[in-house]
Amino acid sequence: MTTMPQPATPDLPAFADVERAAARLKGIAIRTPVMTSRTADAMTGASLFFKCENLQRMGAFKFRGAYNAIASLPEATRQRGVIAFSSGNHAQGMALAGQLLGVPVTILMPKDAPVAKIEATRGYGAEVILFDRYSQDREALGRQVAAERGASLIPPFDHPDVIAGQGTAALELIEETGPLDLLLVCLGGGGLISGCALAAHALSPGVKVIGVEPEAGNDGQQSLRAGRIIKIEVPKTIADGAQTPALGQITFPLIQRDVADIVTVSDAELVAAMRFFAERMKLVVEPTGCLAAAAAFAAKTPVKGLRVGVIISGGNTDLASFCRLLAAA
Amino acid sequence: MTTMPQPATPDLPAFADVERAAARLKGIAIRTPVMTSRTADAMTGASLFFKCENLQRMGAFKFRGAYNAIASLPEATRQRGVIAFSSGNHAQGMALAGQLLGVPVTILMPKDAPVAKIEATRGYGAEVILFDRYSQDREALGRQVAAERGASLIPPFDHPDVIAGQGTAALELIEETGPLDLLLVCLGGGGLISGCALAAHALSPGVKVIGVEPEAGNDGQQSLRAGRIIKIEVPKTIADGAQTPALGQITFPLIQRDVADIVTVSDAELVAAMRFFAERMKLVVEPTGCLAAAAAFAAKTPVKGLRVGVIISGGNTDLASFCRLLAAA
Repeated sequence: MTTMPQPATPDLPAFADVERAAARLKGIAIRTPVMTSRTADAMTGASLFFKCENLQRMGAFKFRGAYNAIASLPEATRQRGVIAFSSGNHAQGMALAGQLLGVPVTILMPKDAPVAKIEATRGYGAEVILFDRYSQDREALGRQVAAERGASLIPPFDHPDVIAGQGTAALELIEETGPLDLLLVCLGGGGLISGCALAAHALSPGVKVIGVEPEAGNDGQQSLRAGRIIKIEVPKTIADGAQTPALGQITFPLIQRDVADIVTVSDAELVAAMRFFAERMKLVVEPTGCLAAAAAFAAKTPVKGLRVGVIISGGNTDLASFCRLLAAA
Repeated sequence: MTTMPQPATPDLPAFADVERAAARLKGIAIRTPVMTSRTADAMTGASLFFKCENLQRMGAFKFRGAYNAIASLPEATRQRGVIAFSSGNHAQGMALAGQLLGVPVTILMPKDAPVAKIEATRGYGAEVILFDRYSQDREALGRQVAAERGASLIPPFDHPDVIAGQGTAALELIEETGPLDLLLVCLGGGGLISGCALAAHALSPGVKVIGVEPEAGNDGQQSLRAGRIIKIEVPKTIADGAQTPALGQITFPLIQRDVADIVTVSDAELVAAMRFFAERMKLVVEPTGCLAAAAAFAAKTPVKGLRVGVIISGGNTDLASFCRLLAAA
């Protein structure tokens, strides 16, 4: 059994790991388009380059890390299957990656997860085990199921191969745009930003990487300022992909080293960005996917006169919620 | 003054005109992405390649033809300005193209056009002249304003340079996909399909080009079957870009020669396609932009086992209508 790595001083992934992940993902992940908008540039005074991971397979960047983590397992380990607990994009990324690689995938989901998400995960061929989130400890359950099956537990962000996989989004972006002054990346557990920062600093020396969190869930900002991981209550925000209570043992030191600052945006600013993407750029972006762009639009960090990469992380919102949020604004 | 060409046997544009248009548009129009969807392929049994002109500048393919037509005018003519009557995507395409080329643009719009569209057209720097569509003849008014100013009237579809410009969408698509068995294109006045058919037959010999109209507005289908242009009342359909009463003097002979068949889809089928694009492909597509895809999804023409190009023509729908249509379905 492979357990989630939680050493005191973990081995941190490096840019070479992102390059290896890019080679594994070539022809498998979609090389998502980089879009620009004259209107967005006029609004901000910047040159913004949007990396559209909402157009990635299964609708989010999470596919990159999940695929890279499963593909990096030794053959014998892989055959015993992989396991994850998630009710969101990581579950679907794992399920799809496992299907493509012929690896059995088990996903632990809370009993009260939306039926559509459970069905979508099963639709990719994964086995779904439901648990009661009020009476059962999902981590203990995950370790138990992994031990019984000899399966490898793949956490959603705090894993070197997951981080390296996510970093390929920034690698592709900068290959296309050339050097950037600033890279804005949303932040939950920190897997995307720590991987993207590895690629950004290697390919665009002098770039500043800035993380963006929802106001209600600014544990990353607090942690960066305090110099230690601060854990908060599950935050109340429409950015459901960033409702993580704390950074990880691997992501935190990477963020401390490679991320210049973390800023926050309000839910109202996220809705304004969703509206902009739908009306002007014809893109459906989920609230979490709007974090980085909202920081640019609302000038939460200086962008004027700069070449700015903006990661749009995903587009998995159901249309009823999408329309409800836009109607309420 | 240059008037709209309406000869009995007009000079028809050829593939070389599409190639020249592509050279003019290079670096100016967005080379829009070609997307695929495993789910769409599984639903239809085909390999579908979606050319995303909703991601074109100003949100629709119309920019291609407008820019090519203005850029093709002799320098002296150009400086006297261009004029168009349109309340839709052609107006915005002309306004943006004129702005980029430094050519004065006048747009005649009905007084009761949506304020947002009038403002958007003015936002691109065009002069907007409002007229009363019940008491004024817009064509006579257009000719009068054109004569007074020495400006060139650029019609929305029945013009060789407009047609050649629109054809660059299919040229780019097939450059990326290689040979296709079938190309599905929406059809209003026929500018897009006749241009795309020129490119398709040149680059993919043996391809069948199929037009798709809204059920309520099947004048093209009727015309193709009758062998002459049939004019209908302005049709009632949510596909507002296809509410044209008749094909043109240039588009009709091209369609007769190059288009194998014209099929129709219902408004409900358009809404189902809009939903698919938003939920599965994270794209905002206007109803007219869904015509070609809806024909594939609803198997209005055989697609199984075929490599099929599908033009998504535009994404200019306001969010309130978008959400209303999706909620009603």
